[in-house]
Amino acid sequence: MFIQSPRNPRIKAVARLLSSRRHRDRERLTVVEGLREVRRCLDAGWRPAEAFVCEPLLGPEGLALAERLRRTGCEPASVSVEAFARIAYREESGGIVLVVPYDDTALDRLDPPDPAFLVVVEGAEKPGNVGAILRTADAAGVHGLVLCGLGTDLHNPNVIRASLGTRFSVPCAEAPTDEVVSWLRRRGVRPVVATPDADRVYTEVDLTGPVAVVTGSEAHGLSEAWRRDAELRVRIPMFGAADSLNLATATALVLYEVVRQRGACFWPARD
Amino acid sequence: MFIQSPRNPRIKAVARLLSSRRHRDRERLTVVEGLREVRRCLDAGWRPAEAFVCEPLLGPEGLALAERLRRTGCEPASVSVEAFARIAYREESGGIVLVVPYDDTALDRLDPPDPAFLVVVEGAEKPGNVGAILRTADAAGVHGLVLCGLGTDLHNPNVIRASLGTRFSVPCAEAPTDEVVSWLRRRGVRPVVATPDADRVYTEVDLTGPVAVVTGSEAHGLSEAWRRDAELRVRIPMFGAADSLNLATATALVLYEVVRQRGACFWPARD
Repeated sequence: MFIQSPRNPRIKAVARLLSSRRHRDRERLTVVEGLREVRRCLDAGWRPAEAFVCEPLLGPEGLALAERLRRTGCEPASVSVEAFARIAYREESGGIVLVVPYDDTALDRLDPPDPAFLVVVEGAEKPGNVGAILRTADAAGVHGLVLCGLGTDLHNPNVIRASLGTRFSVPCAEAPTDEVVSWLRRRGVRPVVATPDADRVYTEVDLTGPVAVVTGSEAHGLSEAWRRDAELRVRIPMFGAADSLNLATATALVLYEVVRQRGACFWPARD
Repeated sequence: MFIQSPRNPRIKAVARLLSSRRHRDRERLTVVEGLREVRRCLDAGWRPAEAFVCEPLLGPEGLALAERLRRTGCEPASVSVEAFARIAYREESGGIVLVVPYDDTALDRLDPPDPAFLVVVEGAEKPGNVGAILRTADAAGVHGLVLCGLGTDLHNPNVIRASLGTRFSVPCAEAPTDEVVSWLRRRGVRPVVATPDADRVYTEVDLTGPVAVVTGSEAHGLSEAWRRDAELRVRIPMFGAADSLNLATATALVLYEVVRQRGACFWPARD
């Protein structure tokens, strides 16, 4: 199967998934681009619905991935450079694009061990920020990431891309804020809410128990549901001219403070 | 003065500063866009060479800034929407663009108090990463940021923009790596070099003395000059599928570990 024209219906269908969240949500299909992202998607056991390769752009790793796709029963369509340009945003796309079915992001599918280590992001508007948080969450070894509130969604192709494919290795869920609040309460997981007006500094509270680090939207902060008594509210000290850290940076600082407090016995051994 | 045409020579001159580093470096002029960025530039005492405002895009803060420019003797040129689109990348530019002379980024202009708290970034390729690091460095209260090695430069308009204007509040310098290494040694400032193959975890070393946190390029890591005996090499533990944290995230974690160790007496008081 060779697709020459950028106006081929299959190419147009992928372009539409890239440009319209509504269309993505209706079809329950999203798009994965980039060699690392494709590899991590396959590593995590996702089965693509479709695959497209652009032979002139394939290097050794791309060729190996294309072969791996064939072995798993997903024959990639070969695509011209012109047609591929319509479905690949990046120059470094590596020559492979997958269309994959949505995974189930219901909250109840998360089942963190004790003590739980979760991250909740409310109302994140920028896919790049959610992707960056996924990358840090993966590195910090969290048991799951939950998105709540309005904003970008876990199947946004730019989230997957900015996460470098850690979207596939970190357990992920989406739910309305109130459901997340009560789910955490039922499971005995304490929300640690990062907010600039908190009294306590994040490094001075005990984070060794079951915790969910909660951070909020770039523009609007966190909703009232996170401001009840039961929550532990913490702030990150700031000394500069600007009034806020980037959402992904603030989240990284609190996640790695949990890592620090949980202690050296959790560090991986070095060879 | 009203500029209607996008082909006006002054507009073309700004567009050229935006597109060509070589041209910027020759003219020693750069471009500042965005209300926060413009405000912080003026707050820091920089004097614009030129200013452009697009009246239909000005809100209350923009109007106040335009008035402030006039008071400081810099009469902004009024620009049509079409012409302004050529010199403003962002929709949220806020309707003001400045052309400012380069500042002096010689290393010897940095004069950190004791114990010094510096950050050195080598070979950063992405202006967005340097801007993000500046934002965190500002919040963490560092005494200065130094860029070394090949990569983006401190006068890149995208660095200024991604820093939200903290480029103007954080003391900044640029120098070749070897000069930075010997300058730090002369001043008794210990480089704390973040590198994945270090033996010691960054939270388990004493960072309360005079330190320069050193992080390296996204793709190539740090050069050999940072791998000598005198340096303290540290790693950030990672537990996930991916093999690296984002450069800006890694830098933020080590900077805020310095903040944590320097202790509660440094936290700003809350009202």
